[in-house]
Amino acid sequence: MADNDWPDLAGHLSDGVHRLPVRIYYEDTDFSGAVYHASYVRILERGRTDFLRVVGIGHRELAAAGLNFALHRLDVTFHRPAAIDDVVIVETTPGEVTAARALVGQRILHGETVLVEAAVTVVLVSPDGRARRFPPAIRDTLLARRKPVG
Amino acid sequence: MADNDWPDLAGHLSDGVHRLPVRIYYEDTDFSGAVYHASYVRILERGRTDFLRVVGIGHRELAAAGLNFALHRLDVTFHRPAAIDDVVIVETTPGEVTAARALVGQRILHGETVLVEAAVTVVLVSPDGRARRFPPAIRDTLLARRKPVG
Amino acid sequence: MADNDWPDLAGHLSDGVHRLPVRIYYEDTDFSGAVYHASYVRILERGRTDFLRVVGIGHRELAAAGLNFALHRLDVTFHRPAAIDDVVIVETTPGEVTAARALVGQRILHGETVLVEAAVTVVLVSPDGRARRFPPAIRDTLLARRKPVG
Amino acid sequence: MADNDWPDLAGHLSDGVHRLPVRIYYEDTDFSGAVYHASYVRILERGRTDFLRVVGIGHRELAAAGLNFALHRLDVTFHRPAAIDDVVIVETTPGEVTAARALVGQRILHGETVLVEAAVTVVLVSPDGRARRFPPAIRDTLLARRKPVG
Repeated sequence: MADNDWPDLAGHLSDGVHRLPVRIYYEDTDFSGAVYHASYVRILERGRTDFLRVVGIGHRELAAAGLNFALHRLDVTFHRPAAIDDVVIVETTPGEVTAARALVGQRILHGETVLVEAAVTVVLVSPDGRARRFPPAIRDTLLARRKPVG
Repeated sequence: MADNDWPDLAGHLSDGVHRLPVRIYYEDTDFSGAVYHASYVRILERGRTDFLRVVGIGHRELAAAGLNFALHRLDVTFHRPAAIDDVVIVETTPGEVTAARALVGQRILHGETVLVEAAVTVVLVSPDGRARRFPPAIRDTLLARRKPVG
Repeated sequence: MADNDWPDLAGHLSDGVHRLPVRIYYEDTDFSGAVYHASYVRILERGRTDFLRVVGIGHRELAAAGLNFALHRLDVTFHRPAAIDDVVIVETTPGEVTAARALVGQRILHGETVLVEAAVTVVLVSPDGRARRFPPAIRDTLLARRKPVG
Repeated sequence: MADNDWPDLAGHLSDGVHRLPVRIYYEDTDFSGAVYHASYVRILERGRTDFLRVVGIGHRELAAAGLNFALHRLDVTFHRPAAIDDVVIVETTPGEVTAARALVGQRILHGETVLVEAAVTVVLVSPDGRARRFPPAIRDTLLARRKPVG
């Protein structure tokens, strides 16, 4: 079954914001009854990955070139919890790009309610864990999608 | 944004088999380069959950009645690995249902290739962890969807 | 087998800093070959939990009183990666405590190398997800262990 | 801080059975209040890994030789749940070893109570995911520790 049989799977990009729907499953919750905080961190990464996918940057191709995206900094504020069975929306908004760092703004929403906000600094690393300059094609792609992080 | 804006999110049921597309993200892989075996176990659970969702059984409603689905037995065979960025399909096929146990057959496929096969025995438990008989409505719903596990 | 057969399991508190050793397993890594960033977030939580355990605050007792610790904010900087089989040390240093928020400073080290630094704001929430004032006993316990976050 | 400052961290091997203590944290639980079933699968892997560590087989050395342990089959029965803050013991007992497969028996206990039982078939795979014969040194090490799986 081809990827394009499930057109929504990588979310949508419009007005400079990528939106990905994510279902909350058992695995995402903890015994408090709500979503475990590190699950939001995983969910945010799905949003960034699918934003990259939609603009044509794939993890597998980068890895073949000896590069992997890694986080330099992650600043997350948790406003309201999500619950089992919820469908939340991950919003990913690319921000400034320097030679070796890209800023990304993210939110997780349930309906109109903002559950989580995050400011993320992304780098590219080689297999020894060292940060590398962005290849021009990747930098240009990110810059073309840039939107000031609010 | 309403759930029905993303119609594919809970997969599709046809010919007695529920099919759910699942994207492989960073979180699902391990340092071997392929998908971590426990990630397939999480992914199988998403398939069972969305099968239940599609036939009208929700975890939240059950929990409100003091019941949770739990696994009694999980027998998984791993044939071939999935990789980052893959879209795999989780097939869930309900099998026999007794007073307190439901058998479920599952497979994870990439294209035509079967990656993982599983036979799962599901029970309902009360908050003290004890197995309970299935409420008639749930048993009838499962029986109506039953298909012999191949 | 009693808990006190494994005396190191909850780590040690000395000079105001709690130290917990954590082994890096397959489950913590991703296909880049290093530790997945959200795994550090899980590992940081183990350090905070065992700090609380060592000073006499248990999640189970809190939950029985209808309270759960939750994160309000998590600001993590990732300096260097950990690898499979590493034993890392999670350092947890309690900081300021207000009526309803506690600041915690954390680091993850491998040998003398700081891999990860985090500033965490912790709250107590009731089952509806609302932040609650700290019960006096918990606030006093945290204040007694307070150390300025560097 | 050296590994040997935390002597219990890899568990103990005696009478042919490896025992590893594992703490249940928030991350291991789900909204049912008990441990999420896939968390037991992760916990079982920690036991197998530390059994291998104690008998001198390290994942990092294998990976340098282009080999990774992978599961061929995992058959788990869930008897009773574990809860937050519990210390459970993972028992790992090596069984038969053929040219390319090793059987392992495992249990998770809380005190004297058996929570989970598992029969696991382990293989070694090359980076393309194909099963390989065990190198003689590894096969001999496993055979020397073999105990009939009960």
